Amino acid sequence: MKVTVVCEHNASMDSEEGKTAYPEGLGVCIAELLKAKDKNVTLIRADEQGVHGLTDEILEKTDVMFWWGHWYHGAVDDALVDKIAYRVQRGMGIVFLHSAHDSKPFKRLLGTTCSLAWREVGEKERLWCVMPDHPIARGLGEYIDVEHEEMYGEPFDIPTPDELVYIGWFRGGEVFRGGCVFHRGRGKIFYFNPGHETYPTYKIDKVRTLLLQACDYVAPVSGVAEKLGCRHFEEFSIK
Amino acid sequence: MKVTVVCEHNASMDSEEGKTAYPEGLGVCIAELLKAKDKNVTLIRADEQGVHGLTDEILEKTDVMFWWGHWYHGAVDDALVDKIAYRVQRGMGIVFLHSAHDSKPFKRLLGTTCSLAWREVGEKERLWCVMPDHPIARGLGEYIDVEHEEMYGEPFDIPTPDELVYIGWFRGGEVFRGGCVFHRGRGKIFYFNPGHETYPTYKIDKVRTLLLQACDYVAPVSGVAEKLGCRHFEEFSIK
Amino acid sequence: MKVTVVCEHNASMDSEEGKTAYPEGLGVCIAELLKAKDKNVTLIRADEQGVHGLTDEILEKTDVMFWWGHWYHGAVDDALVDKIAYRVQRGMGIVFLHSAHDSKPFKRLLGTTCSLAWREVGEKERLWCVMPDHPIARGLGEYIDVEHEEMYGEPFDIPTPDELVYIGWFRGGEVFRGGCVFHRGRGKIFYFNPGHETYPTYKIDKVRTLLLQACDYVAPVSGVAEKLGCRHFEEFSIK
Amino acid sequence: MKVTVVCEHNASMDSEEGKTAYPEGLGVCIAELLKAKDKNVTLIRADEQGVHGLTDEILEKTDVMFWWGHWYHGAVDDALVDKIAYRVQRGMGIVFLHSAHDSKPFKRLLGTTCSLAWREVGEKERLWCVMPDHPIARGLGEYIDVEHEEMYGEPFDIPTPDELVYIGWFRGGEVFRGGCVFHRGRGKIFYFNPGHETYPTYKIDKVRTLLLQACDYVAPVSGVAEKLGCRHFEEFSIK
Repeated sequence: MKVTVVCEHNASMDSEEGKTAYPEGLGVCIAELLKAKDKNVTLIRADEQGVHGLTDEILEKTDVMFWWGHWYHGAVDDALVDKIAYRVQRGMGIVFLHSAHDSKPFKRLLGTTCSLAWREVGEKERLWCVMPDHPIARGLGEYIDVEHEEMYGEPFDIPTPDELVYIGWFRGGEVFRGGCVFHRGRGKIFYFNPGHETYPTYKIDKVRTLLLQACDYVAPVSGVAEKLGCRHFEEFSIK
Repeated sequence: MKVTVVCEHNASMDSEEGKTAYPEGLGVCIAELLKAKDKNVTLIRADEQGVHGLTDEILEKTDVMFWWGHWYHGAVDDALVDKIAYRVQRGMGIVFLHSAHDSKPFKRLLGTTCSLAWREVGEKERLWCVMPDHPIARGLGEYIDVEHEEMYGEPFDIPTPDELVYIGWFRGGEVFRGGCVFHRGRGKIFYFNPGHETYPTYKIDKVRTLLLQACDYVAPVSGVAEKLGCRHFEEFSIK
Repeated sequence: MKVTVVCEHNASMDSEEGKTAYPEGLGVCIAELLKAKDKNVTLIRADEQGVHGLTDEILEKTDVMFWWGHWYHGAVDDALVDKIAYRVQRGMGIVFLHSAHDSKPFKRLLGTTCSLAWREVGEKERLWCVMPDHPIARGLGEYIDVEHEEMYGEPFDIPTPDELVYIGWFRGGEVFRGGCVFHRGRGKIFYFNPGHETYPTYKIDKVRTLLLQACDYVAPVSGVAEKLGCRHFEEFSIK
Repeated sequence: MKVTVVCEHNASMDSEEGKTAYPEGLGVCIAELLKAKDKNVTLIRADEQGVHGLTDEILEKTDVMFWWGHWYHGAVDDALVDKIAYRVQRGMGIVFLHSAHDSKPFKRLLGTTCSLAWREVGEKERLWCVMPDHPIARGLGEYIDVEHEEMYGEPFDIPTPDELVYIGWFRGGEVFRGGCVFHRGRGKIFYFNPGHETYPTYKIDKVRTLLLQACDYVAPVSGVAEKLGCRHFEEFSIK
């Protein structure tokens, strides 16, 4: 399986907290996790100048994409967003992490503002599983704890998820639909809220297992279609 | 209730069939229907040069929009599409008719290609109600017949509707999810497949009642919000 | 609109806390609330001997039923449960409150165990609205606070709600899908978790408004059908 | 994987048409199909005297159950229905075929009457796939043809399916949600409408592939839980 990890680099990652959480870099952390499970991973950098090196060739071979972005959503080229959305519609899986709720491809695919409430004090989040038979939650028990996380709160302006897998509880008083699957065209989307760049969330065992299971779950069931479009029938299909 | 009807004018409407179906014009037919039920209606023309006269002032006072377009989707200005989508997200209702499945605002709000199969031989469609308790279907019985209609067939590349109200049967062998409600943000969207410009579909009694009930159903429940966006909480909401 | 309120009487209601919360009785509290909005209300008592006086005549005239039960679910007659379920399937609305999650009619209509986690220490619940355009939530803002409530926690063994309106946050660390709509047949069901008999939850203004809006929302759109059943067609409906 | 096939024997199967369609017996046909793919299959007979030999031991080892019944739904013991439903709620998969729409376990799990319209003239059904990325539809193309089938038509009184995979078109003018997935508790249910006992539907290649893929899809993701029930928490889970 070919996986492309698009991960923004921002100054917050170069802070002491950022470097402590991910000395190797957040993007490298995710890429290494996937590589260790025999995924063929390409790591792509995004920054204030946009996404670097995500060529058509790479995109058209990608089975599953991971997307982490925060400060520089606006720098992502609209034509690239169109291409990514179209590949999802044709079957590619995609996992949006944390602040990617506000990324262009996520909003393009969902059609809503994806706005939310937020607070950054490093509080505790407990993610309760509300769909215990879901493949993404397999073996992870009733909940997942994240000791320090940025709060994301409802109302989260998304369409009703096709599969609501996790709801997060935050110490400060909020709830959040933090683990959601959406189907768009032939592709599957998974959104997962934990993962602020200054907390080592992606080092937590259960979160790592979840990300791997999400990768497998959103992978194309029947490949990625070459194209989608209207089809003209001249005559009755059945007399 | 303020309703804005955006209706394309194309050469097919000037054909003999088009003029026989709607001597007054398809847009006028819809506008008159709504006016007769005390809606405050503004009729807006679209053509190969785009949408004419849909000012910010009109848009910002619209409770429900109707959209019929076919040949000139590409001429609709992207900035206008953004504004319409944002008003739906804030609470405006919108009804997309027939070939508007391929319009920019519909695709922007749903995030899929909205592609389908089609055949234009004027065959019979019977729309079966699969949600008999739905307000849009009130009093309309088990099905609605349209003697001559353009066939639209599955797979219809839309997200799973939040409410699937009607499924169409076509004589030539196809089925179609032809009456669907989607919620996007605080707004409701209704898509209804019948209504090719050369058949007098919008003269059928049951279809007329359905369009009026759809207008009322998608109207804002709690007004249209001034803006939507992320909200920052500095401290715990609950100690 | 004819509303039938079925409310259990149990010894906990006769405790000091129970009498302080509802000196008039919890069932009377709900009945009076509805009466004040011009509902034609019949209050029915349930206890360890079952449901008293819910005759076929009363049932067959009921548009909306409210159900509150806790200790004596097992005493409810199975034949009565069948009748209630069948009337919901034909169009009657029903609101299940608090511990009615474990009542026979609720489980009969949903097909799951409806089990959950619980803790009774009178902690704070905040119910966040995740569907701001829903008629049940109209005018109630982003959340509803209940200062002292029994905790109900996930996993809540229910089918995915057709409309998830509220998610509760509990001080002790849990979340709960506490405001849910289900469609079954032509009828609508609303479940709402707050309302333990020793806390004056149904005296809270927002909760009262919500209950009234729920009553209107689940009321039959097109009346209650006389019967539902398979229908035999001898010949083709369309040649 | 342990699969239990419960199949009714009725007089219609002993008719010339029945014997021509399935000389080996309809139940044997399904059992052999599954055995050939390395399922460990137990075939159980049902008839006017009920279900024969479905012991607790067999049930408690079953991963996936298939259920075909028609004339003798009423003979199935209610206590057995309870046990089957409880095992589905705990994780067992179940596939209901054709006239099993009216079986007790199906109605118990869905909570509706599951009534429909029907006509038995052996007309053509074409099942259109409306969820092309679904594992049950993998490799089966846009539609499945069944040359001769009993018509089942809408309105089909079921809750909105969690996953609507196929919609059937019937030559005589009806449509039907004929391939539906429901989640109940930790278990998955698949309903598939084709399969009247006098037509050799289960000999069609695509139908056979679909049944095998359905079996795999509804199989438990995380095993079958020993029991489900409410859980009492004495103290705050999080301080």
